[in-house]
Amino acid sequence: MPEFLQLLPPQNALDRLLVALKQSRGDSRTLDEEIDLSRALGRVTVEATHAPHPLPSFPRSTVDGYAVRAADTYGASDALPAYLTVIGEIPMGRAAGIDIKPYECALIHTGGMLPESADAVVMVEHTQGVRPGEIEVLRAAAVAENVLEIGEDVSAGQEVISAGTLLRPAEIGGLAGLGIVRLRVAKRPRVAIISSGDEVVPPETDIQPGQVRDVNAFTLSALVQDAGGEPVYYGIVADEADVMEATAREALESCDLVVITAGSSASTRDLTATVINRLGTPGVLVHGVNVRPGKPTILAVCDGKVMIGLPGNPVSALVIAGLFVAPVIRNLLGIRTERPKPALSAKLTLNLASSAGREDWIAVRLIKSEHGYLAEPVFGKSNLIFTLSRADGLVRIPPDATGLSVGQLVDVSLF
Amino acid sequence: MPEFLQLLPPQNALDRLLVALKQSRGDSRTLDEEIDLSRALGRVTVEATHAPHPLPSFPRSTVDGYAVRAADTYGASDALPAYLTVIGEIPMGRAAGIDIKPYECALIHTGGMLPESADAVVMVEHTQGVRPGEIEVLRAAAVAENVLEIGEDVSAGQEVISAGTLLRPAEIGGLAGLGIVRLRVAKRPRVAIISSGDEVVPPETDIQPGQVRDVNAFTLSALVQDAGGEPVYYGIVADEADVMEATAREALESCDLVVITAGSSASTRDLTATVINRLGTPGVLVHGVNVRPGKPTILAVCDGKVMIGLPGNPVSALVIAGLFVAPVIRNLLGIRTERPKPALSAKLTLNLASSAGREDWIAVRLIKSEHGYLAEPVFGKSNLIFTLSRADGLVRIPPDATGLSVGQLVDVSLF
Repeated sequence: MPEFLQLLPPQNALDRLLVALKQSRGDSRTLDEEIDLSRALGRVTVEATHAPHPLPSFPRSTVDGYAVRAADTYGASDALPAYLTVIGEIPMGRAAGIDIKPYECALIHTGGMLPESADAVVMVEHTQGVRPGEIEVLRAAAVAENVLEIGEDVSAGQEVISAGTLLRPAEIGGLAGLGIVRLRVAKRPRVAIISSGDEVVPPETDIQPGQVRDVNAFTLSALVQDAGGEPVYYGIVADEADVMEATAREALESCDLVVITAGSSASTRDLTATVINRLGTPGVLVHGVNVRPGKPTILAVCDGKVMIGLPGNPVSALVIAGLFVAPVIRNLLGIRTERPKPALSAKLTLNLASSAGREDWIAVRLIKSEHGYLAEPVFGKSNLIFTLSRADGLVRIPPDATGLSVGQLVDVSLF
Repeated sequence: MPEFLQLLPPQNALDRLLVALKQSRGDSRTLDEEIDLSRALGRVTVEATHAPHPLPSFPRSTVDGYAVRAADTYGASDALPAYLTVIGEIPMGRAAGIDIKPYECALIHTGGMLPESADAVVMVEHTQGVRPGEIEVLRAAAVAENVLEIGEDVSAGQEVISAGTLLRPAEIGGLAGLGIVRLRVAKRPRVAIISSGDEVVPPETDIQPGQVRDVNAFTLSALVQDAGGEPVYYGIVADEADVMEATAREALESCDLVVITAGSSASTRDLTATVINRLGTPGVLVHGVNVRPGKPTILAVCDGKVMIGLPGNPVSALVIAGLFVAPVIRNLLGIRTERPKPALSAKLTLNLASSAGREDWIAVRLIKSEHGYLAEPVFGKSNLIFTLSRADGLVRIPPDATGLSVGQLVDVSLF
């Protein structure tokens, strides 16, 4: 049987991981904390917010004009205007404080509060001064015309933001409008990053023949920050089970998710799985995923915490972290509002071959053309980190395709 | 002449602003600072980076197998294998330290350093043990097969990242690979946010009839953070020229960009322009933009700094800030690598009307369907902030269209 039939596709592998996490831990969400609204961008709510009062909280004019009783303007036209007495000006930021009687009106500004006895606003453009204290209304106003009514945005008690919402500027504005300046959000999951490999050295090292710098700790930290987690770096461990186990155990104590990037040799790849199985149950759930790059991925749950073993080469590690580490962080944050992921539609500039049954991810550069974007594959062996820095995003070749054709429209997931 | 013919379209208005900024200030970029690579995500480089050495810096094996002299394997096949003597194992993380003579080979792991006397690697799958110390090679290897050569990713001295690059995980990884752990980036532009309007009160206030809370300070702060700037809040000023001028002058001193959201009444909208013209030259460049929402936008340059007057209503303010404040921040950051903006292609669920000659932005909710996304307009008067929180993004109706048709494919700019 070909190997790819024994390996899980990425989505199934992720599902298996998340199901096991839930079984092992119950509610998988991290703890929560209270923060100021001014620091809420990109954070995730842990409880629903209900409006403490309606918005707007008073009837507001949406134009500059005159607050009127609509009935007084019925039938008004250029030829046959309605005449109204101006009895005052409604102040901004205070109760209207004016009582409009039949055939009376008051000057009102955009955002001003409509007096109780008025029920519409005539735009200033549809009026004409006659003499001081009197106007002609040239067009009839319907009841509620040019008025935001109480509760037209949200009514009192209405759920305005649900639990598990990733907060964007609009939600933050809505909360400000309701006077909610402190709120409870999910704590950023702590994500341990452990590098391994006898050839791997810290980036500040003056490298010797045979040594490579630890690229993955940096790319993964950046990806974790971007996904809403807090990276915690545990350094480079030697390719020895006991050493790796001690570090991973320490990381499991204080972190929600532990990511180990393997050394690149076969022996150290197996080492990660061995160590993970010592650290808790159920242990390794998936060893090998039907995807390129990134086949040797390891997914595990140890006593309620997720451990992920990533391939050591930088490009595979980054692609696979996007497929597994970022979704686990979102799961731990309790994000329930899955918003569409940004992607751009583009035309392939080349044929791309792929093995049927395997999911492939290809780095592409986007080129603007007259008829939209072109996606040009950026080829490079998967060990070359600068291959990715020349790319704008990734194109997925689904497992049921044997490739994609030149000119075909593809969705590019932007980095 | 209809008003829209006198107003500039948004893109022309932005161009006019940026040209005036350059004339007034020369190089418009903000100052720069040196930071750690671990904090570089989303920052912008101010100088080009050249590789201090090639990557990889030594020839590396991309597979587990045997380092060989390719010529020794020529003609090898299952039927007629080549026989090689295994003279040792290449250690990880050190110089190979082994000299391969004709018909010899050495065990090598993925990422291991190729000895100088070898020129290819045979995958372990294409070999077979014969007796201890000897293997059969079942397939010929070409020179450089399964080898990453010195400089195959980048060569010494090559420019790897240009000035003005927004740093993503891939670039951060590339810098780590080159041992560059400190770098100079553009300082985050300081963006002053001033709210005005006699009806506007701080969000923590228990509102009285006629009052509304300051929503814009929060939405704009979030947008500024997202665009890479540092928001600095100057509070709510009364609708009086002298008061607004004093606050704006203080803000101009210590910030790179000053944003004033107007009170909603016509008088205060004009106030902003009057005050800006007192603060420096050339002053107001654009007063009114041909876009909905957001027509009363003001764009200005005062003695080398940008000032932007935004409409007071929260939805207009946020849409317009996306069109003007965010691009000015990117300009101040010196971003030169304009990457494609994330957008999703979706089918409109309704006809949308628009005035010819005016650019309209419509908030839409995205609904996943069998055949891709549907874009459903979220209607609501432009004063309703929760309208935006129910939406996923905006659809642009270009000025030369009189609307968009149901079923038409549109690009949705995600929030």
